[in-house]
Amino acid sequence: MPDDGSLAAERLARIAGCSAGRPGVTRLPWTPEHRAALQEIEAWMRDAGLEVALDAAGTLRGRSPAAAATPRLLLGSHQDSVRRGGAYDGIMGIALGCLAAARFRDRWDALPFGLEVLAFADEEGVRFPTALIGPRALAGTLDPAVLMMRDADGVEMGAAMRDFGVETSGLASLADWDAPPVGYLEAHIEQGPVLERAGQPLGIVTAICGIARYAVTVAGETGHAGTVPMRGRRDALVGAARMIDAVAREAVEAGEIRATVGTLTLGPGAVNAIPDRVAFTLEVRAPRDAARDAFVARMKERFASLAQAEGLGVTMERTYAQAATACDPGLMAALATGAGGDAPHLPSGATHDASAMADLCPVAMLFLPCRGGVSHRPDEYAAPEDMGAAVDALEGAIRALAARTPR
Amino acid sequence: MPDDGSLAAERLARIAGCSAGRPGVTRLPWTPEHRAALQEIEAWMRDAGLEVALDAAGTLRGRSPAAAATPRLLLGSHQDSVRRGGAYDGIMGIALGCLAAARFRDRWDALPFGLEVLAFADEEGVRFPTALIGPRALAGTLDPAVLMMRDADGVEMGAAMRDFGVETSGLASLADWDAPPVGYLEAHIEQGPVLERAGQPLGIVTAICGIARYAVTVAGETGHAGTVPMRGRRDALVGAARMIDAVAREAVEAGEIRATVGTLTLGPGAVNAIPDRVAFTLEVRAPRDAARDAFVARMKERFASLAQAEGLGVTMERTYAQAATACDPGLMAALATGAGGDAPHLPSGATHDASAMADLCPVAMLFLPCRGGVSHRPDEYAAPEDMGAAVDALEGAIRALAARTPR
Repeated sequence: MPDDGSLAAERLARIAGCSAGRPGVTRLPWTPEHRAALQEIEAWMRDAGLEVALDAAGTLRGRSPAAAATPRLLLGSHQDSVRRGGAYDGIMGIALGCLAAARFRDRWDALPFGLEVLAFADEEGVRFPTALIGPRALAGTLDPAVLMMRDADGVEMGAAMRDFGVETSGLASLADWDAPPVGYLEAHIEQGPVLERAGQPLGIVTAICGIARYAVTVAGETGHAGTVPMRGRRDALVGAARMIDAVAREAVEAGEIRATVGTLTLGPGAVNAIPDRVAFTLEVRAPRDAARDAFVARMKERFASLAQAEGLGVTMERTYAQAATACDPGLMAALATGAGGDAPHLPSGATHDASAMADLCPVAMLFLPCRGGVSHRPDEYAAPEDMGAAVDALEGAIRALAARTPR
Repeated sequence: MPDDGSLAAERLARIAGCSAGRPGVTRLPWTPEHRAALQEIEAWMRDAGLEVALDAAGTLRGRSPAAAATPRLLLGSHQDSVRRGGAYDGIMGIALGCLAAARFRDRWDALPFGLEVLAFADEEGVRFPTALIGPRALAGTLDPAVLMMRDADGVEMGAAMRDFGVETSGLASLADWDAPPVGYLEAHIEQGPVLERAGQPLGIVTAICGIARYAVTVAGETGHAGTVPMRGRRDALVGAARMIDAVAREAVEAGEIRATVGTLTLGPGAVNAIPDRVAFTLEVRAPRDAARDAFVARMKERFASLAQAEGLGVTMERTYAQAATACDPGLMAALATGAGGDAPHLPSGATHDASAMADLCPVAMLFLPCRGGVSHRPDEYAAPEDMGAAVDALEGAIRALAARTPR
């Protein structure tokens, strides 16, 4: 019999076939690929001795027998991928959750809580302009209006769900829990280079970073690149360049900040014309909202003074904001115990199902290294031995939580 | 009778009507607008007592009687405009040249040389992907292959010229001068802010800047803006920003350099993706080629060291080069005498007909301030009193040259 790491690798290779085309995995919600994937996941759940049902938000849920009557510890992640994504992001967390639950198969009464593995339908938000419907329904934070959103072909999400076999009429009651869940644990690839660089098989997530995005515009004056002397120019690109440099320098110094200028356009845009307008985006992420806000305030001041020095105008408009989610110290400690005690702690820069589950119960996450820090690409890869270590860590965390939970 | 400044303003306002549409002036070569403009210019030339002919390159030439037999001093500029350009760029130099020549009408034998005013057809290069056919033909530097170039409608330039009435068969012999010209003087708006800022009606051009253009690419590594820590990022835009800042700082310090990054594109170009590639253009102009080359060499080194510090690749490919044209000290001194002796000296950042005429004979240019430093726009404007001063200066320069020329 293969070890659990190899078994996870086998299962993930097989379910990667549930994809709309090659290369990589393209598995959007409420599609034939999604349906085929749920058949695989149901088999993993049954193999763990779990009872399987599709809930009113399209989440496939595998529950230990009689768990309905007790508080439950939840494990899971999402089944969907981006277009031409990889075979690990999301789906690995479901596979590892099932293998961890299987360690307790037929010995459920050794635990003071039930176990439930959740396979959420849609975290990536690729098909519809929304995401996280599964965890939001469980947490009671779902706006039912999202069911009216349409995909690029004009299909309404609610209709797509019903055609898929989801009883959406029960959506509102999903948040009625007899007993509040003990917590939610999610294993996920890191999607960054930290663990690989550190040579560590596992990491404990401290928080899911909050995000703020800004549209920045810099306004100057154009002119002929040959006839306007350097002194007295009001070159919007020179101003923007100094702002981008300041962002990078100050974010490195700030330590916990990740700040990125990802897009930039300029006008008039000719080889021999001084740029008079630049628009760029600034995205700032931090595990603590206060740190993020302080960084943004500092950059606002720096932008203003850099603009003033060059006779430029600058505006900065927030286009998106999402608060940080702190992981639960008790769950983190359990995961650290399960992982062997010396696993590094790190923030998650990306959003996860755990972000939305945090509105329902305590959450924590286990990160696995991914080769080259790469995700959302066909060459996304996590090593079988790291996945084996993750199953051990989840089992250990469940035991640690059980040990401290009164019957 | 109006003074010459007011007369120039009147004539320029009238010939501005020879335009394909509003606002501003759109007068491309070998068009009905060009033909209508030549009728106006012919009247200016005849009013100055000049004999008028269209040469084999489409240059309308007004020559003082019997000038064919003697060395000639040439004055002129171009009749064409950019699309939606102004009423002064180019055409003003023809108008002022005619008015300066008129000061010698019927007293031609007081001069030891003939006078000839040149109205070149095409300096802007808007219709065909070439320019300066008139001065190049006179200097013997015209590649006849340019006659085969086509405009956006597929019309061959040679055919357009012949349809216009130009006897292109005589093109090659235009460079056969019985006696080398004494020199070429061109009055032109500055197209920059220097004279206006200095409150000066006239400036003496020291040189027409050479130009070098480069395509610069910066290569880094993309990654998720949330999951990749700041330390260890290879952000191509951060590297490019530092290069752009270095260009601006060093060009200010270098004094005689004008360096501009006018276009910039990046990839992958998402709010939450670290840029892995940036392409920008760098244009460097200087009145001395050695200064330009030294600046470019310095920037190449700076780019390499900035890239290395961030783990980035950088390439820099020259896409265009044009040597600087020094103005003739004798002609400059004559213009300075004509202008009253305290006119400021400044380089021309833009290219002019004089650039190509320099292959034929000594050249010099007189700059007039333009409001706001603006050119190539409908609101381009030069003041009548400055144009009057320019006619006086051209007359004075002609007298100064006559005084020092042996009969």
